[in-house]
Amino acid sequence: MPVTASFLSDNAAGVSPEILDAIAGANAGSASAYGADPLTESLTARLADFFEHPVACFLVGTGTAANALSLATLCPPWGAVYCHAEAHVTIDECGAPELFTGGAKLVTLAGAHGKLTVDALQRAQAGFRLGDQHQVQPSAVSLSQATECGTVYQAEEIAEIAGWAHGAGIKVHMDGARFANAVVSTGASPADLTWRAGVDILSFGATKNGALAAEAVIVFDAALGRELPFRRKRVGHLFSKSRYFAAQFHAYLDDNLWRRNAAQANGMATRLADGLGALDGVTLAHPVEANELFPGMPDGLAATLRDAGFLFLDWPAAGDGGRRLVTSPMTTEVEVDAFLAAARRYQSAAAGKSASGADQAS
Amino acid sequence: MPVTASFLSDNAAGVSPEILDAIAGANAGSASAYGADPLTESLTARLADFFEHPVACFLVGTGTAANALSLATLCPPWGAVYCHAEAHVTIDECGAPELFTGGAKLVTLAGAHGKLTVDALQRAQAGFRLGDQHQVQPSAVSLSQATECGTVYQAEEIAEIAGWAHGAGIKVHMDGARFANAVVSTGASPADLTWRAGVDILSFGATKNGALAAEAVIVFDAALGRELPFRRKRVGHLFSKSRYFAAQFHAYLDDNLWRRNAAQANGMATRLADGLGALDGVTLAHPVEANELFPGMPDGLAATLRDAGFLFLDWPAAGDGGRRLVTSPMTTEVEVDAFLAAARRYQSAAAGKSASGADQAS
Amino acid sequence: MPVTASFLSDNAAGVSPEILDAIAGANAGSASAYGADPLTESLTARLADFFEHPVACFLVGTGTAANALSLATLCPPWGAVYCHAEAHVTIDECGAPELFTGGAKLVTLAGAHGKLTVDALQRAQAGFRLGDQHQVQPSAVSLSQATECGTVYQAEEIAEIAGWAHGAGIKVHMDGARFANAVVSTGASPADLTWRAGVDILSFGATKNGALAAEAVIVFDAALGRELPFRRKRVGHLFSKSRYFAAQFHAYLDDNLWRRNAAQANGMATRLADGLGALDGVTLAHPVEANELFPGMPDGLAATLRDAGFLFLDWPAAGDGGRRLVTSPMTTEVEVDAFLAAARRYQSAAAGKSASGADQAS
Amino acid sequence: MPVTASFLSDNAAGVSPEILDAIAGANAGSASAYGADPLTESLTARLADFFEHPVACFLVGTGTAANALSLATLCPPWGAVYCHAEAHVTIDECGAPELFTGGAKLVTLAGAHGKLTVDALQRAQAGFRLGDQHQVQPSAVSLSQATECGTVYQAEEIAEIAGWAHGAGIKVHMDGARFANAVVSTGASPADLTWRAGVDILSFGATKNGALAAEAVIVFDAALGRELPFRRKRVGHLFSKSRYFAAQFHAYLDDNLWRRNAAQANGMATRLADGLGALDGVTLAHPVEANELFPGMPDGLAATLRDAGFLFLDWPAAGDGGRRLVTSPMTTEVEVDAFLAAARRYQSAAAGKSASGADQAS
Repeated sequence: MPVTASFLSDNAAGVSPEILDAIAGANAGSASAYGADPLTESLTARLADFFEHPVACFLVGTGTAANALSLATLCPPWGAVYCHAEAHVTIDECGAPELFTGGAKLVTLAGAHGKLTVDALQRAQAGFRLGDQHQVQPSAVSLSQATECGTVYQAEEIAEIAGWAHGAGIKVHMDGARFANAVVSTGASPADLTWRAGVDILSFGATKNGALAAEAVIVFDAALGRELPFRRKRVGHLFSKSRYFAAQFHAYLDDNLWRRNAAQANGMATRLADGLGALDGVTLAHPVEANELFPGMPDGLAATLRDAGFLFLDWPAAGDGGRRLVTSPMTTEVEVDAFLAAARRYQSAAAGKSASGADQAS
Repeated sequence: MPVTASFLSDNAAGVSPEILDAIAGANAGSASAYGADPLTESLTARLADFFEHPVACFLVGTGTAANALSLATLCPPWGAVYCHAEAHVTIDECGAPELFTGGAKLVTLAGAHGKLTVDALQRAQAGFRLGDQHQVQPSAVSLSQATECGTVYQAEEIAEIAGWAHGAGIKVHMDGARFANAVVSTGASPADLTWRAGVDILSFGATKNGALAAEAVIVFDAALGRELPFRRKRVGHLFSKSRYFAAQFHAYLDDNLWRRNAAQANGMATRLADGLGALDGVTLAHPVEANELFPGMPDGLAATLRDAGFLFLDWPAAGDGGRRLVTSPMTTEVEVDAFLAAARRYQSAAAGKSASGADQAS
Repeated sequence: MPVTASFLSDNAAGVSPEILDAIAGANAGSASAYGADPLTESLTARLADFFEHPVACFLVGTGTAANALSLATLCPPWGAVYCHAEAHVTIDECGAPELFTGGAKLVTLAGAHGKLTVDALQRAQAGFRLGDQHQVQPSAVSLSQATECGTVYQAEEIAEIAGWAHGAGIKVHMDGARFANAVVSTGASPADLTWRAGVDILSFGATKNGALAAEAVIVFDAALGRELPFRRKRVGHLFSKSRYFAAQFHAYLDDNLWRRNAAQANGMATRLADGLGALDGVTLAHPVEANELFPGMPDGLAATLRDAGFLFLDWPAAGDGGRRLVTSPMTTEVEVDAFLAAARRYQSAAAGKSASGADQAS
Repeated sequence: MPVTASFLSDNAAGVSPEILDAIAGANAGSASAYGADPLTESLTARLADFFEHPVACFLVGTGTAANALSLATLCPPWGAVYCHAEAHVTIDECGAPELFTGGAKLVTLAGAHGKLTVDALQRAQAGFRLGDQHQVQPSAVSLSQATECGTVYQAEEIAEIAGWAHGAGIKVHMDGARFANAVVSTGASPADLTWRAGVDILSFGATKNGALAAEAVIVFDAALGRELPFRRKRVGHLFSKSRYFAAQFHAYLDDNLWRRNAAQANGMATRLADGLGALDGVTLAHPVEANELFPGMPDGLAATLRDAGFLFLDWPAAGDGGRRLVTSPMTTEVEVDAFLAAARRYQSAAAGKSASGADQAS
């Protein structure tokens, strides 16, 4: 059956034409390998503009690599990393942070809608004996922005967490696989959501927002990044033909492609949420603040939508009948409206059946 | 100064148009992420055809990742890997094999022209106390094909080494970053140079031969590859948009692009070697059997060539005045001939000076 | 101030004279190093008798080493280990299991009185996507016997957990730092509490029960232990003068020293518990089934006892006013009774004050 | 057959009575665990006296642990350690340094009689591209004192190597498994052979010189040791009953037991060397400067000595007919003289046979 629309993931979507063009455009002549090419070398200055702050930038191939390298930079082998219980770093990276750090421990915390709170952090911290050689030592906190529940941290929420963390000698990592979605959602600037709020290191992802494979570790304090060239190389993420990866980021920043793409994805998620929210029996497990939504749906509705060619995942973590829908820059209004129409048809039919059943019963 | 021609490395070269086209062609619609897309799924069968043997195929982003994952597959944390003293795995990967294996030891062996011999392996093996808990245990041998000296192993040389290795309970890895160059050079088939000769696992590289970033771990015995999905994910080399990486390999295999590219690179290296060999005072440290050459050149000649816009590396390992020139699929006869012409002009001028010096002296 | 009695830990206690004598007795002449001495070699047969089953035995220096080596034996680098949230392996080993396994993840589960249940394990297991390369894979469950809360698993409880685990392809480790205490407490045999109930590997500790430094990894299935000689050596736990470590275990088994020591420790804990239980305002957070007790005590009482020379730890995990008292083979009735008498005096005095306060109020 | 004398290894020897007495003497009452006991706490000051310098001291169970922890302290995961090709750290520790460092590389260098030279180090260093992210970075040099060939470094030799190393940003580790033997041999002080000569960290071993299991990492710069408590714990080398390990070192320092023991071992080695040197057909592969000797012996002589109950190892690294004899504090003149007498008897008999053969031939 043909796919009518895929809401499986933003990384199931294709690549923005601007980014494909940039890759092709990078192909003229030879260029020094391993990042000593003009596109890679000029990227740092562009990112410094983007973040309004000097940065060091380390291109890597995947978000998992960016996250695990970031945590290894912040956390010794005997360190602990606080993260949300649903965080990608602990759920979906097959132990990459543990490997890259040399065996650090991820300490998972509960929190509504995928978000950490200072309160949860303080309680966890109270459970550690600081400085005691018998225990791993809390060294980093990792925030996902946007979160795995499709919510976002406001700048002041980040600042509050980072303030507490720094006071406790703990560094702050942000998993920004969906960073652009969070910027668009909050209306804050990239600077506001990162170093100004106290973020020490950022996994800056573009792949989920229209790139082919473009991820970067962004370090806001040069000293922190000193070991990263070696760490990156020894996990095999120093690409020889770096120019094609840098080119993706250049195109991503050109004419605010990052913002346009994220706005499209977020807007389509909101449109889906609005439509689904109007249906009886469909509830949303989390506020829809970025490009993911987690509706509870009766199995019949889900099956009908799938039969109609719509792809999405079951998501038990979002409760009974939980599903996950992810929109992307390529998601269109036509797709969303077709999905909603199909859902409405099912509900009407179900209501009719139920009504006729009620008739029969009366 | 404009670059007249770069012989810095084959990964300084651009990407073949066929491969860029394939990337663009993979961009239609959505596709399941993480390798569950049709391009990735169909690649295994194509590679099985290519190798005339069932294979498991694990796409990764770099040759370093492919090598280190391969060695981790063959070698326990307390294992030892035999490799040549100039092998990429020990010289140029910043300890990736040590990290991925969990701390195995690379045992480096000397050997003429970058090649291991059974004799050297036997002598090294005699230095180990097999089964003794105090010592790491020889578990793998890693061959570079083509070698870091621009030479190649013939199928029977591989078979001899692999025969010895298997007899000693040792597995065989081939670092095929320049595998296509070796196939073209030897005239043997991909099968002849791998499983038929006893290779257990291959790092199959296309990046140096015209791809953007296309490397794969090829496993010839399915059982060996069982842990690779987890190993790959936890080093961050499972790409979400896998289709764009698989597409590169499809294009690489289509119409024998791999062979045409390698033939071009090898041919240009031979042309360079023939030309340089005819010059007084230029000697080649190693036979030129693939796409690298290591001429010993007077400093004056090297400086003159660089002034003329030719790029290449000094290479002390190739002896006094050693340099490294690498050709690529993008290297042209025009570039090679320009290089040789410049070299000849320098030699004539130098001979003239020397002659006129002789005149004056007389 | 002189120590009247230490209830800090069973490893604050001294060494049984029989064990010191055995160490001295092992000192005659020379003996092959690294375990090739008669005392080490004969120990395996004695342990096989003790456990009524063939075993492989690997002496190590600490319980942390025994636990982390055991888990590394059961669990690949991308594995997960289920353990109780208060388990020594996750709380008190500074990441040794993570290091020795190469980065596995410890998944902590709640459970009353320090004990895991099949129910908790099943719920945790349901949260994993088995076989999915994105996730670490549940590979082992670690039970502490006796637990960190001073309780014990009955043989049938272990069998139930191990049965579930084996059904799920998960191996079972027992942290037996206080194994003798559990044997004495349950009345079951060493065999009943280990292999007969499905335990695959045991950290068999004697140090907390009267030895100087005697810990062993006991493997009930020889195939499982094949890699342990190398694993042990490379964490520096193969002792050159192994005979002095083996001698401790011989003495531990001779004349049931292990049982006599554990019975003394357990008996003193029961005596303490009985005495404290009779006091108003003192509650026990957990049943006292081995040699630890966790009374909730008013701060005034705790301070008074400490002033009187009794040592014990505050233990916030046991609730408000929580304390931990550990008895050892060296704990005497005189010490226990002195402690209880001091506690009673304080309570009487407090009651008097309170009564007189009541008087004044009336 | 009864053992007449074992020259297998100094760790095949027993424990000095003074040390056994000290262990027994440490057994009074309870003591805080994990090093917070008076014996462990007072040891630091005694070692500071011994070394005439403030030190931090970390007791561990084995020399392998001390070495690997020391190297992990000096060398990042992407570092390289220079050591002699026969060094214990690379030959006999099953990869412990690789594991503890997180994957650093040991670079082995040749050198006469087991000793590194500045010349060899400089040549190795020239082979590295310093600061280049593709390569592991030289970070430490490890010297064995006494060496694995039974030779010693004089203070000025150490100073020369350490001077070069520090100039290159490289730290200096000394594997002092036989440190006392080197002190006695050189006549230099412990200070002269360590910090005064530029050693940054020392594995200070007593086990081979009469202790039961007493090894320590000695750090001469407190800042260097800051991470060691965590590193030690997470390899399972923080002993709960630390007092019995500290007690061994106290006894070792009391009344210069360390010196008396080493003098006995060294003296017996010299006596053996003198006697063997007088025999035809026996050559010593290395100068005998500590307590090991490496005679080349005809197989017939070796067999005869073994038949007579003398134990020693074949040692192919010492050349044709190479054997290794190690003396210990327990080695007696009676044992040495019996060995030499047996050797002389064999030589006389052989000479007789040869002479009579010559007679017959004439």
